[in-house]
Amino acid sequence: MEKLDQLKEKVREITYLGRAAAVLGWDQQTYMPSGGAEDRGNQLAVLGSLTHRMFTSPEMGQLIEDCKPIVASMDPDSDDACLVRMLDKNYKKNTRVPTEHVAEFAQVTTLAQETWARARAASDFAAFRPYLERIVELRRQYASFFAPYDHVYDPLLDDFEPGLKTGDVQAIFGALRPQQVEIIQAITARPQVDDAFLHRTYPEQGQWDFGVDVITRFGYDWNRGRQDKSAHPFTTSFGIGDVRITTRFDPERSASALFSTMHECGHALYEQGIDPILAGLPLADGASMAIHESQSRMWENLVGRSLPFWTFFFPLFKERFPAQLEGVDLQTFYRGINKVEPSLIRVEADEATYNLHIMLRLELEIALMEGSLEVKDLPDAWNTRMKEYLGIVPPKDSVGVLQDVHWSGGMIGYFPTYALGNLVSVQLWECIHKDIPDLDEQIARGEFSALLGWLRDKVHRHGSKFEPQDLVRQITGTGIDPNPYVRYLKSKYSYIYGF
Amino acid sequence: MEKLDQLKEKVREITYLGRAAAVLGWDQQTYMPSGGAEDRGNQLAVLGSLTHRMFTSPEMGQLIEDCKPIVASMDPDSDDACLVRMLDKNYKKNTRVPTEHVAEFAQVTTLAQETWARARAASDFAAFRPYLERIVELRRQYASFFAPYDHVYDPLLDDFEPGLKTGDVQAIFGALRPQQVEIIQAITARPQVDDAFLHRTYPEQGQWDFGVDVITRFGYDWNRGRQDKSAHPFTTSFGIGDVRITTRFDPERSASALFSTMHECGHALYEQGIDPILAGLPLADGASMAIHESQSRMWENLVGRSLPFWTFFFPLFKERFPAQLEGVDLQTFYRGINKVEPSLIRVEADEATYNLHIMLRLELEIALMEGSLEVKDLPDAWNTRMKEYLGIVPPKDSVGVLQDVHWSGGMIGYFPTYALGNLVSVQLWECIHKDIPDLDEQIARGEFSALLGWLRDKVHRHGSKFEPQDLVRQITGTGIDPNPYVRYLKSKYSYIYGF
Repeated sequence: MEKLDQLKEKVREITYLGRAAAVLGWDQQTYMPSGGAEDRGNQLAVLGSLTHRMFTSPEMGQLIEDCKPIVASMDPDSDDACLVRMLDKNYKKNTRVPTEHVAEFAQVTTLAQETWARARAASDFAAFRPYLERIVELRRQYASFFAPYDHVYDPLLDDFEPGLKTGDVQAIFGALRPQQVEIIQAITARPQVDDAFLHRTYPEQGQWDFGVDVITRFGYDWNRGRQDKSAHPFTTSFGIGDVRITTRFDPERSASALFSTMHECGHALYEQGIDPILAGLPLADGASMAIHESQSRMWENLVGRSLPFWTFFFPLFKERFPAQLEGVDLQTFYRGINKVEPSLIRVEADEATYNLHIMLRLELEIALMEGSLEVKDLPDAWNTRMKEYLGIVPPKDSVGVLQDVHWSGGMIGYFPTYALGNLVSVQLWECIHKDIPDLDEQIARGEFSALLGWLRDKVHRHGSKFEPQDLVRQITGTGIDPNPYVRYLKSKYSYIYGF
Repeated sequence: MEKLDQLKEKVREITYLGRAAAVLGWDQQTYMPSGGAEDRGNQLAVLGSLTHRMFTSPEMGQLIEDCKPIVASMDPDSDDACLVRMLDKNYKKNTRVPTEHVAEFAQVTTLAQETWARARAASDFAAFRPYLERIVELRRQYASFFAPYDHVYDPLLDDFEPGLKTGDVQAIFGALRPQQVEIIQAITARPQVDDAFLHRTYPEQGQWDFGVDVITRFGYDWNRGRQDKSAHPFTTSFGIGDVRITTRFDPERSASALFSTMHECGHALYEQGIDPILAGLPLADGASMAIHESQSRMWENLVGRSLPFWTFFFPLFKERFPAQLEGVDLQTFYRGINKVEPSLIRVEADEATYNLHIMLRLELEIALMEGSLEVKDLPDAWNTRMKEYLGIVPPKDSVGVLQDVHWSGGMIGYFPTYALGNLVSVQLWECIHKDIPDLDEQIARGEFSALLGWLRDKVHRHGSKFEPQDLVRQITGTGIDPNPYVRYLKSKYSYIYGF
């Protein structure tokens, strides 16, 4: 048992240094003056290499080995058993990758991100191409450190969605795509809804205050968090007692701050709801990107874009913005905020088209990793699929293949988790409705405590004790399944668009 | 030379971790929600013990030893020679103190600070007494690690004011005290000035904006810093490119935010002015507490409470606060903000009485360390001296011996640097006036660039390359000297009070 305590103490040191880096990252994106960038980069680099060194040290490996027989006799779902299992897996993953590879990857992606930002601004794919080529090479090399594998994409996917296999994702998306395309075709055959009221000007402070009111009702704990502004909204945790969110105001898209606030609140409720007994351990984290996204998308979409939600909040919203909503009633408002329209930009996509943006990216990533697609042919492949899936073609690469930051940061394997999060959110939603039959009525009264209580119990408190697939199976009885999401889309949009 | 590069690389790592800790500290005092306190303490503790371990490692000692012969042939004022000299001194200081002592000191002072806060609130010295007794014991023990010394207080003083000896401070203060007491007596014999206008309400935003205007003119670089609010104003540096200040608004003392902003700006101009070639090294820091304070007090008092300054700014101030300053003219305003009145609280003391608060503390600290005063007799000793130096006796210990946080944090040896900073500020001021004969006229036109340029060249750019006494001697030709300060007080207050 002494070994277990030693292991936890060492792991806590690393966790606290990681949290310190998170504080520096938060400051960088909220308040840091421009002159601080260079030193901040150096500070984060030192913290990063130090925690990497500490975690991959032979002493850490030995301690983990020493603890494995100790936890072997424990309940496999106990905190200690989960911790050692997770550390063992991560230690092996981290030590398989040579330090020189880690360093080169960091260096290449730093340069690539700067280049991408300029290339996107100039819509100049050729400028970004050599960096992306090198990144694809490095990612293929990274995968090779984990050979043998079923698929070259598996090791990448595992970094974001532990335990999930490429074949699983392909099967899920293969079943989903034709059904989702069919729904979109049904929608586009119908008359478009009116969202003119969203294109009026909503003063920032009013939006901020309304968003704060909403997430306070959701159960966001302001003693253990805060909201600030940043260029790109995000959630970050410095510990269970300090989970912060950010938002932004886009004058072109007046509702985006509110939905973004609800989205980040969903992430934050997850982190705030982790069992305090896990504090300081790597288990005090979300189970995976997809599970995290299931929480954010649930509060943003299943709650925040629902008719029960606006039954309660629309009168309050109208009271705050009477001029902007002159002549707009609840039904018009509800339809307007759920307007479906195939569009070029993923982060602006509606619920019905969003997953198609993801499937396109996943197919391209897999093809790049398999070697069946070359980087030079990527813009064409992108545009061809956009035409096929969404019926539109980007007029330039800045709103096409260059739109996302992920690839420039080497984050191949990340995209599918967004769509998986959507699917999981509705799988959970169906379970919640079974357990809380009057959930819609509660929401229509502005009550969210039963919902939050359910999520706390089934999802949040476990942190990352369980691999995401296992967690989904524990709660729903099945693996990740696209059918609940298809049912949800059909039901919602047949009501709104009348098909 | 390779060894020197290795040494710098190792030292930079430690510096960046220290800067990371500074970011965490800044956040803790500005934006952190209450729930974040426990984790933040853990994060800072890990960073602290890690940097201590890194700096006191045998490898660090060996590298320093290896570099000493390399720099021996260099100009002793070169950056490299200064760096190795400073590291050698600090390494020896740090490694002389046993790790167990460091740990116990940290533990005792953490508890003592919590106890002190409660004791001050309840004005209950007896509750704090056992902690302070232990702290005095530990500080005496700390001093013993540096035996032999001229005076038991020397090793403590050296932590805040490198190279300065207790005997020097006693000689300086011994010469200063009777002259300063004489000035106060001359002032109190005269009719009091009117500062009623300071007791009106000045809206916070107007104060904030005016303060920002003033320090922008001083030359504070907003691309390399920012201002936020905190309970206690402070300046912190995360690198030469990110030097931040904070301020606070006290409804009872309406001018305090402005003077506090100028004070912190003085600290920040110092840190922003360090030569970028020193970036990432421990030389990119102020030379000492006293030199730092000389900068803050210069901008706050010698500039900010001067007639030339208000000749320019009073019309602007009056424009911003016309109702509050109804019927107040420049002379009345100038006299009002320079009102002298013996008072109980150090941080609220005026320029004429401030140093006496410090001398009192220094004498008590020395007596405690020598063993000629026991902690149990401290309140009486405090009150006796207050009566003798300032003619007033605290009605309770919360506004007497319990008012400052320093002793509860173990910071014995810190106080004298405040008064020394005042003295140095005027020594520099006399030199500046020789080099810039029309300085007053420039200030009266709102021009500060020549002043800042002088400070940059003589003080700021050197960072902590030189020990403070050497720096003062380089610039002024003498050591720390109380006579310029006495001349300044006499001239200023004979004008204001007419003696």
